[in-house]
Amino acid sequence: MKMQFKEITGSIVAPQGFLASGVFCDIKKLGTGKGSNKGPKRDLALIVSETPATVAGMFTTNQVCAAPVKVCVERMKKRLAQVVVVNSGNANACTGQQGMADAREMVSFTERTLALSAGRALVGSTGRIGVTMPMDNIRAGILAAAMELGGTPTHADQAAEAIMTSDSRSKQIAIAFKLGGQTVRIGGICKGAGMIQPGMSATGARPAALPQGGLHATMLCFITTDAAIDAAVLQAALNEAVAHSFNRITVDGDMSTNDTVLVLANGLAGNEKLKNKNSKLKTFQAALNHVCLELAKKIVRDGEGVHRVVTVRVTGARTIQDADAAARAVANSALVKTSWHGGDPNWGRIIDALGYSPATVMEEKIDIGYAANGSKKILWSLKRGQPTKATFKELCAAVAPKEFELHINLNLGQADAVMYAADLTEAYVDYNKGDVTDPTTLGG
Amino acid sequence: MKMQFKEITGSIVAPQGFLASGVFCDIKKLGTGKGSNKGPKRDLALIVSETPATVAGMFTTNQVCAAPVKVCVERMKKRLAQVVVVNSGNANACTGQQGMADAREMVSFTERTLALSAGRALVGSTGRIGVTMPMDNIRAGILAAAMELGGTPTHADQAAEAIMTSDSRSKQIAIAFKLGGQTVRIGGICKGAGMIQPGMSATGARPAALPQGGLHATMLCFITTDAAIDAAVLQAALNEAVAHSFNRITVDGDMSTNDTVLVLANGLAGNEKLKNKNSKLKTFQAALNHVCLELAKKIVRDGEGVHRVVTVRVTGARTIQDADAAARAVANSALVKTSWHGGDPNWGRIIDALGYSPATVMEEKIDIGYAANGSKKILWSLKRGQPTKATFKELCAAVAPKEFELHINLNLGQADAVMYAADLTEAYVDYNKGDVTDPTTLGG
Repeated sequence: MKMQFKEITGSIVAPQGFLASGVFCDIKKLGTGKGSNKGPKRDLALIVSETPATVAGMFTTNQVCAAPVKVCVERMKKRLAQVVVVNSGNANACTGQQGMADAREMVSFTERTLALSAGRALVGSTGRIGVTMPMDNIRAGILAAAMELGGTPTHADQAAEAIMTSDSRSKQIAIAFKLGGQTVRIGGICKGAGMIQPGMSATGARPAALPQGGLHATMLCFITTDAAIDAAVLQAALNEAVAHSFNRITVDGDMSTNDTVLVLANGLAGNEKLKNKNSKLKTFQAALNHVCLELAKKIVRDGEGVHRVVTVRVTGARTIQDADAAARAVANSALVKTSWHGGDPNWGRIIDALGYSPATVMEEKIDIGYAANGSKKILWSLKRGQPTKATFKELCAAVAPKEFELHINLNLGQADAVMYAADLTEAYVDYNKGDVTDPTTLGG
Repeated sequence: MKMQFKEITGSIVAPQGFLASGVFCDIKKLGTGKGSNKGPKRDLALIVSETPATVAGMFTTNQVCAAPVKVCVERMKKRLAQVVVVNSGNANACTGQQGMADAREMVSFTERTLALSAGRALVGSTGRIGVTMPMDNIRAGILAAAMELGGTPTHADQAAEAIMTSDSRSKQIAIAFKLGGQTVRIGGICKGAGMIQPGMSATGARPAALPQGGLHATMLCFITTDAAIDAAVLQAALNEAVAHSFNRITVDGDMSTNDTVLVLANGLAGNEKLKNKNSKLKTFQAALNHVCLELAKKIVRDGEGVHRVVTVRVTGARTIQDADAAARAVANSALVKTSWHGGDPNWGRIIDALGYSPATVMEEKIDIGYAANGSKKILWSLKRGQPTKATFKELCAAVAPKEFELHINLNLGQADAVMYAADLTEAYVDYNKGDVTDPTTLGG
C-alpha cells in the first residue's frame, strides 16, 4: 500500500514514552582526541521506553556474527524490552568468549543502572572488528548516558550522532499518522556508511535466497513506536519492511558482522492492539515501510565516498531470485559503479553484468533505460538488445543527476526487484585504504 | 606435476612453423591519433601456422557473449585451424546480426587473404561493447597484417601489442622442453586488464560450479605449440590448464563477454603424437599449465590501477565449491581490496567476507596468515578465530610487499582453492570513470 506520511521532529523520542541520550566515553581510546581528525564525538547511546515494549529485530546473516547480535537474537524470544544500549568505535565482533561476556555485561550493567528487570536491555555495536571492548569506558558511558536521558529532539540528535562511524551526518526520521481515533508515531535512527549490503533475517540464520554480498561500517537501525501491536505481528511487519528497504541497499557489496534493526513498540498511543487481520495493520505496515525505506536511502546517500545514488529497477525476470540476482550484479559491478561515477551511460558494462549474473538473461530481449527519480518517463538506451536512437549526449544528461533510476527489463517473465545502489569513487578507496601510520584512520 | 621450465624468446613464434604480425588500422577511428592519449597503436594481429593445426579453446560463460566468441565456438567442432585474427578497440559484442556478419567476414576475409581453405580461421575481439565493427578498417588491417607476417621475436612483440587495450605492457611467454627425443615449444600472448574475472568453459555454456563474478577489458590468450597432439587430448589439457590459471584470477570481479583462450598445435616438433594415457602427456600438461599460469599472473600484475597482487590460498574447506566461494569472496571484497592497497593487515574485513560468502565457515575455526610468495613460512594473524601475538607492525610488514600470499585455513575439511587477486586503487576508479567529454577515454 502506497501512502503519504507527514514527517515530524524528534525521531526516536517522537513516539510517546521514549527517552534517548548520546555521550562520549572514548571507546576508541583517543584520549582527549587532540591531534586526531576522528574524535572526540559521542560514541554511546541509550534509547529507553518508560514502559516495557514489545520488540522485534532483524540481524545479519553473516556466519561471522558479532557478540551483540548473538545477545539480541537470544533475547528476541521474550519479545519484551525497555532499553537499547549502542556503541560506536568497536564492533565487538570476532572477540570470542570475552566479547560475549562483554556484550552480556553491557546489557546487565544497563539494566542495573536503570533499575530494570533482567532481560529488558538490548545491545548494538559498530566499529573495528577484532578489538576487545574497553569495558571501563563502556560502563562510564552507560552511567553518563543514563544521567543525560531526555525526550527532546536534541536528545534524539545526540543518540543519532553517537551511533555514527564513517557517516558524515546523522540519519533520523519520525512520522505521525492516525490509527482509528488515535495518533500513532514511529521514529527511527540509523547509521551506515561502508560494508553495506545487508542481508538480514529475524534469527540471523541464512535463508537460501538472501544476498551473498557483503557490509562493514555496519548498518544499525533503531525504531521506536507508541503503537500497541502484537509481538508476532510486529516481527512480521518488520520482516516485510526490511525486505523492501535495508535488504535492498548496497554501498560496497560487503555484508557486515553486526547489521541490526530493532523496533520497540510500547503501546502508549492507546490504539486498539494490532493483530493479524486487524484492519489497521495495513496502515501501520505502510508507515513502517516508509520509515525503513527513507532511513535505508539515507544510508546509501551518505555511503562512503558516494557521489551518485542509483535506483536499479529490474523487471521482466523469470523469477524473483533472478530479478534479485540481476539487480545485485549490476548494483555491485565495479565497472558499472565507476561508470556511474564518471557520468558515463555505459550500457555495455550493465549488459555484461547481467550476462554473468546468476539470473537467466537473453541479450536480444534486454531493455536498458534511465528515468528521473520517481518519473515514469524512461529514456531507453537499449531496446531488445539493440541501441536506440538516443544520443550519447541525451544519455549523459540522464545519468548526470546526483540521483536517477536505472530501468532494466529482461522481458522473460513477470518478476521484479529493486536495489538502491551507489557509485564507486576515489574517495571510497582513499577512505578505506586508511593510513597504517595512524591507526585511528583504519576503518572496520 | 610441478616442473621447472626454461623460458625462451619469441613467444607465439617460438614454436616451429608459426608466424605473426601486428598492425595499426585505426579501429577506434582516431584518425591520426593526434590529440588523443590513447592512439595510434597497433590494433590488429594475425597468428598463422604454416600447416593446419589442431585447435582447442575456452570461452566466456557470460550469457551475453560476443560475436567472435560465437564464431569460434562454432568452429571448434572441426578442431582444425591455421590462423587467428584478433583486433583490439572494439569487442564486437552486443552488435546483433551485423556483429555476427562482421565476425564471419573477418574470418572469411582472412582465409581468402591467406589463400586458406574455408573454416581455417578463428577470431578474437576486445574493446568497447555495443559498437559496430569498422569493417573497411578491419579489411585494410588484415591485408596489411598479412603482408607483415614473420617469425622473429619482433613480429611476436607486434602481435602482442596489437591485442592490448588498457594493458600497460604486452604479455608474452615461450618455453622449450623435451618430449621423448624431440624438443617441443609452447608460446603464448595474452592481454587484460580490467573486467577480469574469467569463468570459461570449452563451449561457452555455464557449468554450475563456474564463478559468477565478472571481466571487461576482456582477457584474450593465444597459445601456439609445435607439439603433435590429439585434438580431444589438447582440449582436455587446456581445460585443466585454464581451470588452474585464467579461471583463478580476478582484477575487478567483472566477467567479460569476450574472454577467449585458443591453442593451436601444428605437430611440427615431430614428437610421437600425444594421446590419452600417453606417457609424455603429463609433461606436456605441466608445460601448458606453466604457460597459462604465468600469463594469467601477468594479467593480474598489469590489472587496471593495480598496485599489489595477492595470492589468496584457502585450505580446509568442506568442499571444493566452498573453497572456491570463500577465496572469491575475499578476492572480490571492496573492503579487503582497499585494505590491501593501504597496506593494512585488516583480518576483520577478511573474516567478514568469509562469513558472508556462500561457503560454510565457523568463526572459531578460522586461521588467517601471510607469507612471502612461494614461502611456506606463514605469519599468522588469526588462529582459530583469535588474534595471535603477531604485532600490528609485523603484520604491516607482511602485507607491505608488492606481492604476497594470504593463507586462510577454514579447518573444516580437506578442500582448497587459490585465487590470484589484486588491490582496488584510486587509479582503477579514475581510469574506469573515464571522461565523457572525451569518448576515447571511455573503456569497455
